[in-house]
Amino acid sequence: MSALTGSQWIGGEAVRGGNGAFKAVDPATGAELEPAFGLATRADLERACALAEAAFDGYRETSLQARATFLETIAERIVALGDELIERAMAETGLPRARLEGERGRTVGQLRLFAGVVREGSWLEARIDPAVPERTPLPRSDLRQRHVALGPVAVFGASNFPLAFSVAGGDTASALAAGCPVVVKAHNAHPGTSELVARAIGEAVQVCGLPVGVFSLLFGAGNEIGSALVADPRIKAVGFTGSRNGGTALMKIAAARREPIPVYAEMSAINPVYLLPQALQARAEALGKAFVGSLTLGSGQFCTNPGLLLAIDSPALDAFVAAAVDAVEAAAAGVMLTPGIADAYARGVSTLAGHAQVRTLARGLQAEGPNRCEAAWFSTSAEAFLADEALQAEVFGASSLLIRCKDQAQLLALSEHLEGQLTATLQMESGDAALARALLPVLERKAGRILANGWPTGVEVCHAMVHGGPYPATSDGRTTSVGTLAIRRFLRPVCYQDLPPDLLPEALAPGNPLGIWRRIDGTLGKD
Amino acid sequence: MSALTGSQWIGGEAVRGGNGAFKAVDPATGAELEPAFGLATRADLERACALAEAAFDGYRETSLQARATFLETIAERIVALGDELIERAMAETGLPRARLEGERGRTVGQLRLFAGVVREGSWLEARIDPAVPERTPLPRSDLRQRHVALGPVAVFGASNFPLAFSVAGGDTASALAAGCPVVVKAHNAHPGTSELVARAIGEAVQVCGLPVGVFSLLFGAGNEIGSALVADPRIKAVGFTGSRNGGTALMKIAAARREPIPVYAEMSAINPVYLLPQALQARAEALGKAFVGSLTLGSGQFCTNPGLLLAIDSPALDAFVAAAVDAVEAAAAGVMLTPGIADAYARGVSTLAGHAQVRTLARGLQAEGPNRCEAAWFSTSAEAFLADEALQAEVFGASSLLIRCKDQAQLLALSEHLEGQLTATLQMESGDAALARALLPVLERKAGRILANGWPTGVEVCHAMVHGGPYPATSDGRTTSVGTLAIRRFLRPVCYQDLPPDLLPEALAPGNPLGIWRRIDGTLGKD
Repeated sequence: MSALTGSQWIGGEAVRGGNGAFKAVDPATGAELEPAFGLATRADLERACALAEAAFDGYRETSLQARATFLETIAERIVALGDELIERAMAETGLPRARLEGERGRTVGQLRLFAGVVREGSWLEARIDPAVPERTPLPRSDLRQRHVALGPVAVFGASNFPLAFSVAGGDTASALAAGCPVVVKAHNAHPGTSELVARAIGEAVQVCGLPVGVFSLLFGAGNEIGSALVADPRIKAVGFTGSRNGGTALMKIAAARREPIPVYAEMSAINPVYLLPQALQARAEALGKAFVGSLTLGSGQFCTNPGLLLAIDSPALDAFVAAAVDAVEAAAAGVMLTPGIADAYARGVSTLAGHAQVRTLARGLQAEGPNRCEAAWFSTSAEAFLADEALQAEVFGASSLLIRCKDQAQLLALSEHLEGQLTATLQMESGDAALARALLPVLERKAGRILANGWPTGVEVCHAMVHGGPYPATSDGRTTSVGTLAIRRFLRPVCYQDLPPDLLPEALAPGNPLGIWRRIDGTLGKD
Repeated sequence: MSALTGSQWIGGEAVRGGNGAFKAVDPATGAELEPAFGLATRADLERACALAEAAFDGYRETSLQARATFLETIAERIVALGDELIERAMAETGLPRARLEGERGRTVGQLRLFAGVVREGSWLEARIDPAVPERTPLPRSDLRQRHVALGPVAVFGASNFPLAFSVAGGDTASALAAGCPVVVKAHNAHPGTSELVARAIGEAVQVCGLPVGVFSLLFGAGNEIGSALVADPRIKAVGFTGSRNGGTALMKIAAARREPIPVYAEMSAINPVYLLPQALQARAEALGKAFVGSLTLGSGQFCTNPGLLLAIDSPALDAFVAAAVDAVEAAAAGVMLTPGIADAYARGVSTLAGHAQVRTLARGLQAEGPNRCEAAWFSTSAEAFLADEALQAEVFGASSLLIRCKDQAQLLALSEHLEGQLTATLQMESGDAALARALLPVLERKAGRILANGWPTGVEVCHAMVHGGPYPATSDGRTTSVGTLAIRRFLRPVCYQDLPPDLLPEALAPGNPLGIWRRIDGTLGKD
């Protein structure tokens, strides 16, 4: 197990950036962590992009088997990093061991899931409309369609999942699965974790005999390297998880390029939770406790944190509030990921606390060290929420806002007023079905995932997951950044008309050599 | 059969716009055609968008059967318009009867094809990951995904296909199939054709008992109404076929919205045709004649017109040129769609003719009436083409440019230099396979459709077609505007977690009541 060197990964080797250096900070103590990490020069960026472009045509035509094995090898190498990875991630993020071990499991599971997706081959979406030479007035040509990879993808690591949404996270896994080389701009909050994972991927590239440009890792300070990466003409798509400001800045850069490219930015959400009347009636106290569990999990640092509760006034709602207030007031202050995030949280909470139309319901236990997240729970009226767009802004961390509605009509009006969300949750009993039925069409328009009787934190990596939603939850509501459908973000269709059989890609070749699902004249089968 | 009234279609009835009026022009004669068409007021636009929004939730949940029947009813009603439609379209576009009858067949065939797609149900992309309550450390929830419609869609009719890419064309058919209400901004070159088709759709809406907001037609002068339509917050996606200037203007409006929305703009392409050495050797003369047939078809007014030929210098190439020159010089000047298009064509041809590095190889027969398209064929060197981006600009009409390369390396370098294209064509014999194999990866990156031994004009409406391609051929290379995959442009995934079975949409309900393909735990089947 080699120690950290403070290096990027370019061209199949560790490359120290020569554009200044920085160190990670342990948010639990505020102490700097060794070593210093060298920042990318423009030449580093140039080389990573050139290598990615050079690797693209070869990598995208690797066999399904070879590409799946590559993803599995990355998973193996990450596991092989062992405790060094977990301990470094703990030091850099303040997240506890169990969480990071779980996240490692999720990360390697995700890579293996995509290996299975690659082998299964449906993502190629093979379609064949055979020639109809006898058709009148004009014969039909032989037409075959498959999906191909978009090109090199820029991935921005997220702060809050140093493994599962970072260097080898969902964006990287799905882009590599699609056949796209990846250039990662590491998140500066966890550079050591990033270096270790990059090395694991780099080793997998080598073991699998792939071109070195398939994967690069860059460090950059501020926005310069990230902006230049998105602007680089060799980059054909962007994956990002982070703030709305960050995501919309990348959208602007991508749209202003000579060749605009898709940006998949998962940005912000307040994830409304509806406490429907019968559910409150049946289990107000349990809901109150469970809500605070979801609110304070991981210091609230989840994209799906329940930042908004909606309910109709009732005595049962008062019971819910009482239980949740007790739970918030007993909640210990967890460490936040970075000083910047802790500052933004403190500012956001202070703004809400000072809002004339907002009442503070409860605050969590006071903190003893730096960068602590003292939970905060507020309430406001439906009228105030409708009147002030700022009340829809996400406060990243364990902060939430309760809106008391006077009736169902007001609850529905509020729902229509919501911005795009990652999730919407219904706490309901069978007696709430009519109201749930009225809410569902609205929630389908507003959110990527609709839950009943659960909490939005916890995003399963599977086939049916949607971790996405209408703007501003994401930059592109037609997609998901978690789950197997995420591969589609990095693909586009190509049609082959009357191409000689020996030139056809295997996915479309006569006799279905890959044994994949293909749509022949519109009918799905394994011909 | 009722006569034209010069009206829009809003709220289930003919509505005359009160914002001034205009008349169509017969491009063959320059004469104005009766009646005058009233232009949309802002109130008309407002009403169309409000009705579309109001219709959305109901329309998107119509049964597969009801929606398919609606599409088929539109087709029937268009056929029932009979000769009035063909004659009006002939007068407004200068296109001949046979072409328009064929285009009508294509248009109604397209609607019927999408009806079949709707019934088959794969577009819902149902995915079910059943709950795993016994999983440790955490149980898995029941997760189900389907695709839902995006919302009301703005469609811009194209000038060059007054039926197949206009009011009831591919954008409208695929948006309606997806469950999206449609607001069409008619192309002012064929308002009478548009009124007739809008009436047919409106009747189908009524016959099928659908909300009147499912379809509206607006007339607008200049860009005002179109821009306001794309900017309207109730519009959630845009379909457009037209110029690069028009498409990129809509992209900017859509990106600048408070909620950015997808724009599917099919814009411009020069559709490179590669004359590979053995093909030239085997059939130079036949290729020359066939090329000019494709070039001058419909006065060259196709998005897939072969505007660029690439070949390696050889005596066989000279023979090709000689045959093509003869054919161009014998080509009659067809009528162009509008005075504006004819002017732009004349300017484009004149610019090429005056370019210091461009040689005029041949011009078609001179014209006798207004708005005629005299075919034009030019040649230039690879060096000149590489040095001047302006030589890649589309000249809409029967104009094409031949590039003589000195060797295969130069042919490949030129290919890498090309912008995104709708199509790329290989004229090849088996002896050209090695060169074709070297070109294919490049062409896959550059184009949406790759043809062998055909001509790009002629776009089959089927399952495997891709009428799309990387920017600037389209605004979004991940899609197609022709063929059944076009429905996906107007859909987004939604995930349902632990939703009670009686609240689940039919596509995801237990027992698969729709009998559609569903992916259960990743495995495709009809459970």
